[in-house]
Amino acid sequence: MKLWSGRFKENTNELMDLFNASIDIDSRLYKEDIEGSLAHSQMLSKIGILTSDEYKQIENGLIEILSDIENNRVEFKVTDEDIHMCIESLLIEKIGVVGKKLHTARSRNDQVAVDLRLYVKKEVKKIMLLTLQLMEALYQKANDNVEVIMPGYTHLQRAQPIRLSFYLMAYFSMLKRDYIRFSNAYQLMDSMPLGAGALAGTGYETDREYLKEILGFDSIMENALDAVSDRDYVIETSSDIALGMMHLSRLAEEIVIYSSKEFDFFALSDQFSTGSSIMPQKKNPDAAELIRGKTGSIYGNLISLLVMMKGLPLAYNKDMQEDKKQIFEATDNYKISLEIMAKMINTMTFKEDKMYMATKEGFLNATDLADYLVSFGIPFRESHEIVGNLVAFAIDNNLTLEDISLDKYKEYVIDIDEKVYEILDIKNCVESKKSAGSTNKKSVLKMLENASKWLEEK
Amino acid sequence: MKLWSGRFKENTNELMDLFNASIDIDSRLYKEDIEGSLAHSQMLSKIGILTSDEYKQIENGLIEILSDIENNRVEFKVTDEDIHMCIESLLIEKIGVVGKKLHTARSRNDQVAVDLRLYVKKEVKKIMLLTLQLMEALYQKANDNVEVIMPGYTHLQRAQPIRLSFYLMAYFSMLKRDYIRFSNAYQLMDSMPLGAGALAGTGYETDREYLKEILGFDSIMENALDAVSDRDYVIETSSDIALGMMHLSRLAEEIVIYSSKEFDFFALSDQFSTGSSIMPQKKNPDAAELIRGKTGSIYGNLISLLVMMKGLPLAYNKDMQEDKKQIFEATDNYKISLEIMAKMINTMTFKEDKMYMATKEGFLNATDLADYLVSFGIPFRESHEIVGNLVAFAIDNNLTLEDISLDKYKEYVIDIDEKVYEILDIKNCVESKKSAGSTNKKSVLKMLENASKWLEEK
Amino acid sequence: MKLWSGRFKENTNELMDLFNASIDIDSRLYKEDIEGSLAHSQMLSKIGILTSDEYKQIENGLIEILSDIENNRVEFKVTDEDIHMCIESLLIEKIGVVGKKLHTARSRNDQVAVDLRLYVKKEVKKIMLLTLQLMEALYQKANDNVEVIMPGYTHLQRAQPIRLSFYLMAYFSMLKRDYIRFSNAYQLMDSMPLGAGALAGTGYETDREYLKEILGFDSIMENALDAVSDRDYVIETSSDIALGMMHLSRLAEEIVIYSSKEFDFFALSDQFSTGSSIMPQKKNPDAAELIRGKTGSIYGNLISLLVMMKGLPLAYNKDMQEDKKQIFEATDNYKISLEIMAKMINTMTFKEDKMYMATKEGFLNATDLADYLVSFGIPFRESHEIVGNLVAFAIDNNLTLEDISLDKYKEYVIDIDEKVYEILDIKNCVESKKSAGSTNKKSVLKMLENASKWLEEK
Amino acid sequence: MKLWSGRFKENTNELMDLFNASIDIDSRLYKEDIEGSLAHSQMLSKIGILTSDEYKQIENGLIEILSDIENNRVEFKVTDEDIHMCIESLLIEKIGVVGKKLHTARSRNDQVAVDLRLYVKKEVKKIMLLTLQLMEALYQKANDNVEVIMPGYTHLQRAQPIRLSFYLMAYFSMLKRDYIRFSNAYQLMDSMPLGAGALAGTGYETDREYLKEILGFDSIMENALDAVSDRDYVIETSSDIALGMMHLSRLAEEIVIYSSKEFDFFALSDQFSTGSSIMPQKKNPDAAELIRGKTGSIYGNLISLLVMMKGLPLAYNKDMQEDKKQIFEATDNYKISLEIMAKMINTMTFKEDKMYMATKEGFLNATDLADYLVSFGIPFRESHEIVGNLVAFAIDNNLTLEDISLDKYKEYVIDIDEKVYEILDIKNCVESKKSAGSTNKKSVLKMLENASKWLEEK
Repeated sequence: MKLWSGRFKENTNELMDLFNASIDIDSRLYKEDIEGSLAHSQMLSKIGILTSDEYKQIENGLIEILSDIENNRVEFKVTDEDIHMCIESLLIEKIGVVGKKLHTARSRNDQVAVDLRLYVKKEVKKIMLLTLQLMEALYQKANDNVEVIMPGYTHLQRAQPIRLSFYLMAYFSMLKRDYIRFSNAYQLMDSMPLGAGALAGTGYETDREYLKEILGFDSIMENALDAVSDRDYVIETSSDIALGMMHLSRLAEEIVIYSSKEFDFFALSDQFSTGSSIMPQKKNPDAAELIRGKTGSIYGNLISLLVMMKGLPLAYNKDMQEDKKQIFEATDNYKISLEIMAKMINTMTFKEDKMYMATKEGFLNATDLADYLVSFGIPFRESHEIVGNLVAFAIDNNLTLEDISLDKYKEYVIDIDEKVYEILDIKNCVESKKSAGSTNKKSVLKMLENASKWLEEK
Repeated sequence: MKLWSGRFKENTNELMDLFNASIDIDSRLYKEDIEGSLAHSQMLSKIGILTSDEYKQIENGLIEILSDIENNRVEFKVTDEDIHMCIESLLIEKIGVVGKKLHTARSRNDQVAVDLRLYVKKEVKKIMLLTLQLMEALYQKANDNVEVIMPGYTHLQRAQPIRLSFYLMAYFSMLKRDYIRFSNAYQLMDSMPLGAGALAGTGYETDREYLKEILGFDSIMENALDAVSDRDYVIETSSDIALGMMHLSRLAEEIVIYSSKEFDFFALSDQFSTGSSIMPQKKNPDAAELIRGKTGSIYGNLISLLVMMKGLPLAYNKDMQEDKKQIFEATDNYKISLEIMAKMINTMTFKEDKMYMATKEGFLNATDLADYLVSFGIPFRESHEIVGNLVAFAIDNNLTLEDISLDKYKEYVIDIDEKVYEILDIKNCVESKKSAGSTNKKSVLKMLENASKWLEEK
Repeated sequence: MKLWSGRFKENTNELMDLFNASIDIDSRLYKEDIEGSLAHSQMLSKIGILTSDEYKQIENGLIEILSDIENNRVEFKVTDEDIHMCIESLLIEKIGVVGKKLHTARSRNDQVAVDLRLYVKKEVKKIMLLTLQLMEALYQKANDNVEVIMPGYTHLQRAQPIRLSFYLMAYFSMLKRDYIRFSNAYQLMDSMPLGAGALAGTGYETDREYLKEILGFDSIMENALDAVSDRDYVIETSSDIALGMMHLSRLAEEIVIYSSKEFDFFALSDQFSTGSSIMPQKKNPDAAELIRGKTGSIYGNLISLLVMMKGLPLAYNKDMQEDKKQIFEATDNYKISLEIMAKMINTMTFKEDKMYMATKEGFLNATDLADYLVSFGIPFRESHEIVGNLVAFAIDNNLTLEDISLDKYKEYVIDIDEKVYEILDIKNCVESKKSAGSTNKKSVLKMLENASKWLEEK
Repeated sequence: MKLWSGRFKENTNELMDLFNASIDIDSRLYKEDIEGSLAHSQMLSKIGILTSDEYKQIENGLIEILSDIENNRVEFKVTDEDIHMCIESLLIEKIGVVGKKLHTARSRNDQVAVDLRLYVKKEVKKIMLLTLQLMEALYQKANDNVEVIMPGYTHLQRAQPIRLSFYLMAYFSMLKRDYIRFSNAYQLMDSMPLGAGALAGTGYETDREYLKEILGFDSIMENALDAVSDRDYVIETSSDIALGMMHLSRLAEEIVIYSSKEFDFFALSDQFSTGSSIMPQKKNPDAAELIRGKTGSIYGNLISLLVMMKGLPLAYNKDMQEDKKQIFEATDNYKISLEIMAKMINTMTFKEDKMYMATKEGFLNATDLADYLVSFGIPFRESHEIVGNLVAFAIDNNLTLEDISLDKYKEYVIDIDEKVYEILDIKNCVESKKSAGSTNKKSVLKMLENASKWLEEK
């Protein structure tokens, strides 16, 4: 018999029970549900609705149930409907009629709201920690490889030579923004919904400030109708995950490309590679591909949540039950992706020679040459065109810019001399970048120093 | 030890095993995987790669494994990686070295491709059947309620009176298109990928026509590279489900609105309603809300698949492993939604009086009046404006159009007479619609007749 | 001739010009592009790369171009490619060879990055302002209607009576979170990318701190590769808009439902309603429907951006050109939706009587009755069931709970007396909610006071 | 004054006019709107509602308006609301009171429904044609390059050598499915909505069969309520475009990767490449990147449409106005992407030597070796492991499989002889694939032959 069945004459259809139940998903909230019920009963005791003896019975009952669940002594059934009804039923079973008093001055909407918020808060904290771990991995590799030069790309075409550290620290910067974004989301969600009743508040003089303290929230939600209708924190967390996963997908794509035979810049550890069932030679970057692939799933979680909430009238609607699956999936996938990525970076080898050799072909010094011509009083737009012509000439004659004779250069710039070959030296091209935030050594060391400080402070 | 580990020196990292494994998801394909392996070994035997004795051993082994799985005698482990590797390992364990011959002339990419296609084909067939059942439910209720009149809405504002049957048959029409769309998708996916090898075909003269016959496909896929890269059928099925679910979400929304106290047109059976943990009077249309809510999930599945496949180079990439979770979820949710909706319709009651009364207020006969004025030679645009003014007059004086005096009408149309009140009669408004496909009785009976014939032919 | 054509031998294909050009979209950034170029040239002058005379020429040229554009004296052509190339070309045309010096020490990637960031920053500020205006509108209506009672709903079923103010202030709370979220996004994006060069920094000792001051940023981006690759702020703004629009879609849905003849709670001003081309009586809530409909478009913008950025290698890729259309559309649609919603609220009328009458039917006092029974020592779960039975009895006999005789009540609770009818009084049900954040008058006045303070501080 | 303003007392707010108007978007439907009105008036004349003189006046008026619009003599204004109201107003202006008769027996919902369907039908036909053109381009290049060998990839790791033709024909296969999918969608949408009135049919005995003939539809829609509510064809077209664009995004990604300096397999024509504003050497595959990037936009269009339609009650709601922008954008972007891709393929050069050389490294012959060992009676799983070990040995000693001595091979397979080196020859690896649909010459020629026949039949 359902706990809410007073006014019903027919039993719920079996398929409906199955369809309606969320216990297979929300049983994951058992800890938060018990946490919430413990706090609620403690508060009821404080304001005299429960005697201290009743409270003790409820507390002991709940703690036993927690232990039962954690030791697999509870089997969740579809007829339990959801984790809230299930735990309440278990309590009544365990301690009898006193258990029926627990639900005074609260509603299931209340419970859903506070349980999920407690859960998401914890997840966001974990994500922040895992983000730091990946940042640490990137920082370490960047710090260890300051002297390594690689091609920088735009449009996947070789563009300018850069330091590997500089490249890795670009991802560090992205993750730092992610960290701040999650931290902002955390603050915004750190407000307690419990005490909203069904939608209008409750007829008891509950002490929500006390609840807030016990449950570790920063503030209480100001409007009960909003409190039971609000899933902003779920969507915001999902949005932040989508954005963070986009960053991981970019790094993953580059790991795949840079591990190809053709690029051959990065070598993944065997620990994070897999083989083929048919092709004995294969060593595949499966982990990176999976992270890239899971990006689809994570975008899907976000869109699912947004669609679900679109146009829903206040306050609670059953549609909102579907939120949990999405946010559980998104946080699970994101956490493991962050962790795998960190380990993949930690165990990865960089093929310095291959990377350096790759900077030699593809005219990566062309911009430096153009900049150099400017020093002869040629406007940049013209020097750009001159170098464009020289590149075309070099391609036709299968030369690099370094191979072109001084006489040829003089055809364009009469005053040019041997110094041009210094300018064209790849290492010089890296060091010659002088602006703040550029790829030269001093600038990269500065980034590393800032990063190190920032990490220490966390 | 992995079956593909010949060239590897380090073991796979444990977390990587967990991340990489798909067994928790794709174990659901055990039947199709065994079906594919049975066909493959039968073919290998036909072309002489397996002796008939070897084939018998493999066949028996596979059939035993099927029975073991179905009787819960197999526990899938993360280290099994996926269902294909798992079943192959079980086979080798069971029948020894002969089992190692099964994988001749095929690849895992091959297996993934054929298993999932077999699975999706079956799912689409089930969806088509469930679509028919919902159509049948709608048809029955439409057939039983030809005389029931209700308001038709645009912008959720009362627009014109219509038959309930006419309303229900609008959904029948949508579902008919859905049925055809799934049928088209089925035909397009009914082509066999098996025999593609890793990506380039195999070095054996396999008999793919024979495989096609055994596995019940309509044709074989023409290009091996395409065969292992193709997930079109997964996406097309997911698209068709999204479109079908959109239809269900509209019906669900109307069930929610029409079951509200304010509309009070539809009464859901207790069997498909639920109560509140706190408010004893509540009877909520949870099933309809859940269908509406699951629309978000189903849209998310589609976008996940599309994102996952975006920009993937040929042929197989590990990203594609994520396809199964999405399509399993989409088909599961859609099938149960169709089934629940059919049962909800079957057990629903229509409150004829409430619906009829609702047609009386809101000037639902205004268009008929405007059309009638046209018969006095007034261009439609002008008659529209006249009726608009009369409506404004009626609102100000708290009247219906039927309440307005003939004298008042004559102010606008000198020749008008008592017949105007016949025109304004709601039942007349329904019957007066004369065009093909309109809400009048003859037209609705025609729809019902066509529907009945169409259903019979399926 | 393209400004970058030095190394090319064939002209760009015409269709390619059309496909490649973004001028039809990004011409909207003309002001920011000129702003960026003015700052860049000023900085070049400060560090001695431009003489002060050259700088003056460039400055004057750019200011003239700004004026030309704003007075429609410039016609953008597809061959201009984008707004950056276009303005540079115009400058060279106008002031000759000196104009060719402007592009020293910067790249188009730089320009795209700084222009769009300047633009999005302004848009976010506008959105914050419009959010405040809608909050103000809600606050005013809430403040004016503290005594108005309406049904509160869950599952679109009448649940408990609430104050209209309480209802309106729930949306106020949502919008307040939106405001904070945009403010967080603003802070995170307030870092200057200019000076990144193509991807690696520039070969000039540019003064990025100076640029930062002129352009009004809070900090400079620390890594050039990140600076040209970063579109986080575009996605974060788009996410925040999607979440905000979800809120508007809920309010819009309720406006549509509450304006229906059946509910008849809200009356829209004629100014924000429209009619039908065929049905003269119709008055449709088009504005609310459009806001609800545009939610689709805004979700689409977000997913487009996320998909576009997925798996893109560093640094700039042409795919990123597609970002502007999406963010322009999202901000445009959101700004006008906020503005229309505020005006719709401002001009809306509330039908107090209809709303109050609606609280009378539907057993909205059932929870209060259940809570009351608890005071007789009955555990809540049992009192809930008793009231459920009483509701069923009332429905069967077409009664309200107030209509049930005291004798009947005594069958369930022997000690009950006349006071039960006070408890059942709807106004009492509203006032009896005593918890913080509930719908009683004191609590709602507190919300209003806090809101008023908060608005004043902005 | 609005054509529907009879019952309104206040004018529409200016911002509301702007928000509500769709003329900036739907003016694109002017041709279809006039086409629909011509057919409608011709039918009205046939059934005697218009005299033949009235019809002539309307016909001439409409034809003039068409010409006015096409010669830019009409300026659309926001106050025109939409293209339907605009053209009706123009007609009344032009021919006076007779123009007011045009709207007899139809509604704007009717017009929206038929106009958009006519438009989408045309677009789908164009897409089918452009799909054929791209298929033709792929076929031509495949036909011209049957002897060219390249590496086939899985996980972007070299897997097995394949023919370039085989690779190109994989895309041909995808596009063939796309073609069939669009053709199915076309058939399903080829049913005429006109004559549905507002939602319930019209009060006139209209001849919808006649309308169907004039307007070139295959059937008439059977239910008026469905006719005005149905946007399935918009969503189905958008879904099919999303799937097709996914294919183009894969090809685009490969073009980008294969055009990188590191792969260097494909050379794009200068006509379809662009340069950099700062780096003179750059030649970027912008067209391919844009196609990949526009995939995001096209996915966004689909999700926008699905979200817009989710949970909308019947029949017309203003939300549906947002459909046009999405489908216009999706079809425009898809058409130009197909066209650009065809031209890019047509003008592309394949670097045969580079591709062939790439097959030499990376052990692409390992599967062939494993298959060969099977002929010595070794089960495939064991031969796979042996070859895995040999690959590891080769990597350690910087050898290819061809370089390994016969003695070394004999350590694993005592009976092996010199023939192993034949087996390892790359060209042999390609030809040795014997299964139907594989990469060997005979099989590829068969694909080409089938393709050629199929193209001819279209």
